[in-house]
Amino acid sequence: MERIEIGLIGFGTVGKSFYELLRKRRDRLKEQFGVELVVSMIGVRDPKKHGERIDSSVFVAGYDEIIANRDISIVVELVGGIEIPLEIIKGALSRGKHVITANKALLAEHGKELFMLARESGVELKFEASVGGGIPVIKVIRESLKGNEIFSISGILNGTTNYILTRMTESGLSFEDALKEAQEKGFAESDPTLDIEGIDAAQKISLLSSLAFDGWVDYRDILCEGIKRITKKDIDFAALAGFVFKLVATGKMIGDKPLVAVFPALLPKGHPLATVRNEYNAVLIESDFLGKSMYLGKGAGGDATASSVASDLGDLIERIRMKAKPDPVKPRPSRPFSLFSKEDMSFKYYFHFVTENRPGIWATVTGLLASNAINIESVHQKWENPAEPSDLYVMVDETAESKVVKAFEEIINAGGIYDTSTYFRILEE
Amino acid sequence: MERIEIGLIGFGTVGKSFYELLRKRRDRLKEQFGVELVVSMIGVRDPKKHGERIDSSVFVAGYDEIIANRDISIVVELVGGIEIPLEIIKGALSRGKHVITANKALLAEHGKELFMLARESGVELKFEASVGGGIPVIKVIRESLKGNEIFSISGILNGTTNYILTRMTESGLSFEDALKEAQEKGFAESDPTLDIEGIDAAQKISLLSSLAFDGWVDYRDILCEGIKRITKKDIDFAALAGFVFKLVATGKMIGDKPLVAVFPALLPKGHPLATVRNEYNAVLIESDFLGKSMYLGKGAGGDATASSVASDLGDLIERIRMKAKPDPVKPRPSRPFSLFSKEDMSFKYYFHFVTENRPGIWATVTGLLASNAINIESVHQKWENPAEPSDLYVMVDETAESKVVKAFEEIINAGGIYDTSTYFRILEE
Repeated sequence: MERIEIGLIGFGTVGKSFYELLRKRRDRLKEQFGVELVVSMIGVRDPKKHGERIDSSVFVAGYDEIIANRDISIVVELVGGIEIPLEIIKGALSRGKHVITANKALLAEHGKELFMLARESGVELKFEASVGGGIPVIKVIRESLKGNEIFSISGILNGTTNYILTRMTESGLSFEDALKEAQEKGFAESDPTLDIEGIDAAQKISLLSSLAFDGWVDYRDILCEGIKRITKKDIDFAALAGFVFKLVATGKMIGDKPLVAVFPALLPKGHPLATVRNEYNAVLIESDFLGKSMYLGKGAGGDATASSVASDLGDLIERIRMKAKPDPVKPRPSRPFSLFSKEDMSFKYYFHFVTENRPGIWATVTGLLASNAINIESVHQKWENPAEPSDLYVMVDETAESKVVKAFEEIINAGGIYDTSTYFRILEE
Repeated sequence: MERIEIGLIGFGTVGKSFYELLRKRRDRLKEQFGVELVVSMIGVRDPKKHGERIDSSVFVAGYDEIIANRDISIVVELVGGIEIPLEIIKGALSRGKHVITANKALLAEHGKELFMLARESGVELKFEASVGGGIPVIKVIRESLKGNEIFSISGILNGTTNYILTRMTESGLSFEDALKEAQEKGFAESDPTLDIEGIDAAQKISLLSSLAFDGWVDYRDILCEGIKRITKKDIDFAALAGFVFKLVATGKMIGDKPLVAVFPALLPKGHPLATVRNEYNAVLIESDFLGKSMYLGKGAGGDATASSVASDLGDLIERIRMKAKPDPVKPRPSRPFSLFSKEDMSFKYYFHFVTENRPGIWATVTGLLASNAINIESVHQKWENPAEPSDLYVMVDETAESKVVKAFEEIINAGGIYDTSTYFRILEE
């Protein structure tokens, strides 16, 4: 029986889950593929710390031995960070080894170079686990939708922020309490900046857009806003008006330019992405033949991520057995996109003005919206303590973002309206 | 450039969509795969009726020429019905041609024989389009979830009934009006029996269960109930209690026996399948590593179905180019399951008793539930015209189905309670 050797680098949460998956499924994979899968080396920082439950001879320090090992044909990189995995993957690809990674930050920063290197080396760089955790969205785009032209791809791609927003919405928690709870449950890191600011989601939607639109989107170029501006009052008003706040990542072809962005948005309650709760992720795709389709699952966690790593591994085993050429459908770094300009975007908008509690405010707000040709759809004001600032909520029809920015600035500068006022985009189905 | 010839049999809605898809994507597929794809023959009943927009020389009468043609390596069967496609597929497989079909009824009736024949002939019988229309659920189970053990698979697998129930729920239509509307919109056939009675969904969940649990489930052996019993009153009460009626198809391993069934059920509004509206289908899978994942899309229609046919075609092109062995993961007809018995099932239940409007009815109902050890969770009665029958709604804790059947019979026979009374299962997440 043919034997395929795997080098696993990194033995944290995902690494351990993946190792356990292989242990549990060894016989089935052997039966299905007719090959013996062996994790012949596991690279870790300190091999002495491991090996209680696993034959300790497989642990090696670092990764040099693994990428130098000619018997290893697949390297599974589950280290995290940027610099070290970059060295690992470059080393493995250039030595003709297939690589599986879950590292979207690395792919977002250095994907261009790495995908090109994989192409030149005639091997695969697989990354199902890097976007949407266990959701098989990469394979769906590459293979199941092969006959489709994809118009748009949007999703809830960050479990941390989705958990926080769900708890704020459903249980009335403050942002701080929801974040703390997410950290306790392991859904948020001790430094949650990359999640909260939308950067993690931006990296993921850039990868998905690159794949779906067959080019290359650099995440550093896209519009990226986090969830910190959303207050309890915004969430309550949204609920009253039939909307839910979500951190949405979206990519959409407009002519020959993709609009790619991450921002907090109000979704109508009937929107497919509005129903995605807690730490779950989902990806909604619109394409010409299939129409709308959605893929939902756990966006993080060792076991869910290991499931995607195993999916990539299954593909590689087939390729190795068949001595096949690399998969032709992949992000194409050689074709960088010129992105649709943020200023040209248009949406429906929701404004939350925090104002002095006195006559004339309505006239100011509605007057300045009118003079900017922004059409009001609904207005709502809550009567509260007259000694405190008022909250004025306004929803408006589809408008160019540039107009909204201008009108908002004029309103804030008109007097009587505090700069804690804010606005958000509304995304309809 | 290598040339792969396709024989298309059947040129109805799906056949035309698939042909159009190939026309639109020809250049892309050529570039990606490095092969020239040619539909060299299209088998139809009467070739004279076709050919206005397509080179008429490709049309042939019937299918004999196609399955005898040695240059054709892939047969796409989109005929519909049972007897003719059975002959086509048997003929094609036994001559060493790969086959793609969207015909779940055929696979449900004759899949055992056909999958075995494909195995013996060393070719593939692909059927992504046969379940869930455009949803790529077959590929997800076969490939993406390869590292997982699947515990359960359930879904909304029939677009006709889901459309009808959605319209009854959201717009208050009667069953008859909703069905009529579905027929006008092309979501229901002129004879909708197979859909309404749950048989179409039963065929699909049996195929999915066979694949997910690695054996063979015969749809004729499973519990199958349609949606006709659901009244407007049931739907209204469900909404009041926070539930939605759906025709659910479900397969679940209990020990070594799968419980496979199709029935109308009340789902809590937060259940992932409760949000699937109109003609959409969805499949919810629970597996050990990935956890819960859901796949949603259009369950029918020419274009969505063509998308799945194209996905199968992409897989076959790879296989042909690599001269690869058939995919090892498929339904296994040689391992027929012994099914979990209907009598041993247990659920929460909802009863709707239609009763005389007089004292003593509550005592009868609650007494007989108590004597059968069925625990009441909530009771609701609407006060209406005292000259008309009363409606008494009762929800009970999880109970063995056998007890529920017995209690219901005793209640109906106790006097004062009409046999238009009914009960439904409640499915929680």
